Amino acid sequence: MLPNDPRLKGFGDRATLAEVQGWIDSACAALPVVEMAADAAAGLVLAADMTAPADLPPVAASALDGLALRAEETYGASSYNPLMIQLVGRGGQLLPGTAMQVPLGAPLPEGADAVLGYEAAEIAGGMVEVMAHAAPGQGIVRPGQDAAAGQVLLPACRRLRGEDCALALTARLGTLPVHPGPRVLLLSAGRFAGADLLPVVLGPIIRRDGGRVVGQGAARGDREALARLLLKADADLIVIAGASGLDADDRAALVLAQVGELTCHGLALRPGDTGGFGRVADTPVLLLPGSPGALRLSWEMTGARAVRRLAGLPPGPALPTKVLPLAHKVVSEVGWDEILPARINHEGMLALTAREVVGSGAVARADGFILVPADGEGYAEGTPTAIHLFDT
Amino acid sequence: MLPNDPRLKGFGDRATLAEVQGWIDSACAALPVVEMAADAAAGLVLAADMTAPADLPPVAASALDGLALRAEETYGASSYNPLMIQLVGRGGQLLPGTAMQVPLGAPLPEGADAVLGYEAAEIAGGMVEVMAHAAPGQGIVRPGQDAAAGQVLLPACRRLRGEDCALALTARLGTLPVHPGPRVLLLSAGRFAGADLLPVVLGPIIRRDGGRVVGQGAARGDREALARLLLKADADLIVIAGASGLDADDRAALVLAQVGELTCHGLALRPGDTGGFGRVADTPVLLLPGSPGALRLSWEMTGARAVRRLAGLPPGPALPTKVLPLAHKVVSEVGWDEILPARINHEGMLALTAREVVGSGAVARADGFILVPADGEGYAEGTPTAIHLFDT
Repeated sequence: MLPNDPRLKGFGDRATLAEVQGWIDSACAALPVVEMAADAAAGLVLAADMTAPADLPPVAASALDGLALRAEETYGASSYNPLMIQLVGRGGQLLPGTAMQVPLGAPLPEGADAVLGYEAAEIAGGMVEVMAHAAPGQGIVRPGQDAAAGQVLLPACRRLRGEDCALALTARLGTLPVHPGPRVLLLSAGRFAGADLLPVVLGPIIRRDGGRVVGQGAARGDREALARLLLKADADLIVIAGASGLDADDRAALVLAQVGELTCHGLALRPGDTGGFGRVADTPVLLLPGSPGALRLSWEMTGARAVRRLAGLPPGPALPTKVLPLAHKVVSEVGWDEILPARINHEGMLALTAREVVGSGAVARADGFILVPADGEGYAEGTPTAIHLFDT
Repeated sequence: MLPNDPRLKGFGDRATLAEVQGWIDSACAALPVVEMAADAAAGLVLAADMTAPADLPPVAASALDGLALRAEETYGASSYNPLMIQLVGRGGQLLPGTAMQVPLGAPLPEGADAVLGYEAAEIAGGMVEVMAHAAPGQGIVRPGQDAAAGQVLLPACRRLRGEDCALALTARLGTLPVHPGPRVLLLSAGRFAGADLLPVVLGPIIRRDGGRVVGQGAARGDREALARLLLKADADLIVIAGASGLDADDRAALVLAQVGELTCHGLALRPGDTGGFGRVADTPVLLLPGSPGALRLSWEMTGARAVRRLAGLPPGPALPTKVLPLAHKVVSEVGWDEILPARINHEGMLALTAREVVGSGAVARADGFILVPADGEGYAEGTPTAIHLFDT
């Protein structure tokens, strides 16, 4: 038994959202740095500045498909006064009086100091008719022009984009120091058809925040099954959805306290008031609602924060926001953090899609959510309010 | 040979970006609708309104973990005047004078018209001491409260979120009519180490827009190899990166014209001016730059549009924008659409990271890009300008 089993009685003290976020922050630090192949690192967080080991490009290169030549040999050339220069095969040094075809990005042949576009030349019979003059340096990318040796190409803490990984490979950095993506285990403990729904609801948001679902399981009210799933877990974060409420059959908190540690149970957060936090061995464990709508909303303030911190990202909330006036008054109980699903109505104002999240309909109809912090009583109609916009 | 082979000569007429986008639009319609398992449909576009086949919830259900009872039997109850009601086992009808434990979401037992939270009761010796009165309907979710039978739960053209798929499953809709995600084949035809870089650069953006990379290949200047890769392609969109320029070795356009159709080659677009468009059998083919930075930028206006249209999404650009003043003058040639990498400087103004995109460094240093349309000469310092912000 738990010393203060709240079942059939109600929660006594509830932890505040700020307290839970504090526990999440202390339990979830960025995962230890690994060296990851650059082409597999997109989406992960860089753990150290990435500096250019050499100039990019390393030598002068052509900035276009054209003719490498000596600029001084084109002085005075125009379409009225074409100058003839001998076209030579590719490779080797460029001798005086000759021009050589070079493709964009190729090293400039020694002796050349400009690249002229084909629009300004005509090629016939092994000769180039040059019809414009070239300035020295024209059509050339200088060594280090894209990046100089030693320059910080990407700062530490950057979430790597695909083009960042391409830049690393171009700079011949085969591996990068990154925080690996947190592995999340999703366990369904309740009555809801949650075992199937959990990865559907949470998978996209976990990926959004740099993590990945590494497993799922369903205990369906069976204590022993849940205990076994927890004890054999190999993950960076464990989520137990459902069975954390006040019903006699709700045993998630009990099992967590038995096989690990239950730090708190019962939050001053809606939805998610039956949530909790603890750990099994060193792995943080979140208790969350089993109902998909409540799960989706409370995840943003709890699970998403855990995933983002493990991934090395700022804690969030991660979604883009827009500030719009409220279409109606929003009342909220002091002492409770509330996450309310809202949509942007046809007048560009924010309207709640439901006061109580009873299913996922209200969340599906929402464009995002607004937050009413614990110290607020709500907002008057017309109050400019931030909506956090769903994007996944 | 091509009738108007531009190699070693230069492009004559260049297609405008508007023309290319017109060809993309006519060649890329939303892929034919398929019925997809709801739990695999997240990220895809719904092809028809999704309506609720029945009320959600179908019958009255409990809104909390608590005690189902008859509201009238609690009138007058308070902590000073507790009323005793008999606690009965779960299941069956609720007889007068009794209360039954019900978990959140469970159907309300017949006879009950309220659910009282455990905080307002004390359970001992098979009896419930009720310490607050309940109003009829309190603690109950009405049938259809989350969604009514026949109600449109999600509109056609909606890009499905995880919670949408959960809602479908809750509503017992096992499959959903969706446009499948376009399958993109990435072929590298040029000198750049593009075969490896292509999926690194484009994979995340293709996924962002609802598509997926189904294959990659490298022809490295070999005409026959490129022709074979094109002819055996099984994809909804083919991308050929590199080898579309003016160098004698650039044979991508030539090969495309031989095995399929080359609609245009040479665009009034920077970067991406050697790009083109065509098809092999019924599959649209895009010619794009091989250099990662130029590829990343020109993709947003060409490839991303093709993927989004095939996926059933609006054509884009897909990225969030922010309007900020320019830190310096931006000059642009009339007649050319330009995509310029830019960052937000420490004064909150937009600064270009490079005038010419010579590698991926300038793109990696950028927070996004600004567009200068073909009919503009650029912008004066301080002009409020939209930056399209990279997010992947």
